[in-house]
Amino acid sequence: MTEALDEQALDTLFRKARSFSYWQDKPVSDEQLQAVYDLMKMGPTSANCLPARLVFIKTPEAKERLKPCLAEGNVDKSMSAPVVAIIGMDLEFHEKLPRLFPHTDARSWYAGKPEKIYETAFRNSSLQGAYFMLAARSLGLDCGPMSGFDSEKLDVTFFPEGTIKSNFICAIGYGEASRLHARGPRLEFEEACRIL
Amino acid sequence: MTEALDEQALDTLFRKARSFSYWQDKPVSDEQLQAVYDLMKMGPTSANCLPARLVFIKTPEAKERLKPCLAEGNVDKSMSAPVVAIIGMDLEFHEKLPRLFPHTDARSWYAGKPEKIYETAFRNSSLQGAYFMLAARSLGLDCGPMSGFDSEKLDVTFFPEGTIKSNFICAIGYGEASRLHARGPRLEFEEACRIL
Repeated sequence: MTEALDEQALDTLFRKARSFSYWQDKPVSDEQLQAVYDLMKMGPTSANCLPARLVFIKTPEAKERLKPCLAEGNVDKSMSAPVVAIIGMDLEFHEKLPRLFPHTDARSWYAGKPEKIYETAFRNSSLQGAYFMLAARSLGLDCGPMSGFDSEKLDVTFFPEGTIKSNFICAIGYGEASRLHARGPRLEFEEACRIL
Repeated sequence: MTEALDEQALDTLFRKARSFSYWQDKPVSDEQLQAVYDLMKMGPTSANCLPARLVFIKTPEAKERLKPCLAEGNVDKSMSAPVVAIIGMDLEFHEKLPRLFPHTDARSWYAGKPEKIYETAFRNSSLQGAYFMLAARSLGLDCGPMSGFDSEKLDVTFFPEGTIKSNFICAIGYGEASRLHARGPRLEFEEACRIL
């Protein structure tokens, strides 16, 4: 039996959570990153394929390598964040399926099928990116996801082996709530949903 | 200041949550579906683009239309679920950006650029699909996500207008925990993550 969350938890995850562009001068430890990963890894993926690969950029040296890959509007909010996570996707994820999904030959569903590999890696690493953000919020951290960057340049810089592609990036830390803008509107249920 | 969740909430969302294939004979109300949507809609998307479009399949008639679209292994677990949600993506999401992201001309970032539209819709509707699953779990429901279906057939059946494409489907209800298999292994932090 699944226990529903209390109202405060729903606020933390969804209702009061915001995407931040400004950050408090408060670090995020390696242990916190490990704790976020240990939650996000439990989220469901297709055939347990777990294609997400994360790079956590913390040091000034690593940030300097990230900087030229970013869209202009994302530079300051990335450079000032305690950590920027790159959420990438492993296009050889299927090589791990004999271990991750051992009861059938799931590797053969993907091997030699680059379109299916890409679609599965993109969908499931995006799911895992969402799990990452909600796991970070669950542990009291704030997020600032971004897709404005030069993915080719970023991939050459951080994934030079060529088999991992970036999906999106996400700053994490403790947000500066005083500098938030008003929240954007959302689509009503009737605009986005049908019940048949 | 973001409040961290308690241990039980982390179990509900991540650590003890499972993907279900068998369901208790216990309905899910339209009000519950609305409540799940009202949480998931708050999750972040790029430029607040909110591309996910959901169809909730509840009635025997709608399930009969879904059935021929499903991979054989997904028929029983879908037909026996109280609700199957189709998570689709609107390839005209950018037409709503003047309202959803009014402070700049975000529509022009996408209009006439079908590859960028598709990539953005796919990434962000996948994020929203993950928000959907974690929102459902937050409210005490269980999920059974699936990507084994004939997307062309499903799109013709449920999105005949042609501008919405299915991303994945997800059964929701109250899972039959006695019929779960052992949980699959996960990748260790060192296998999936680097800190720079």
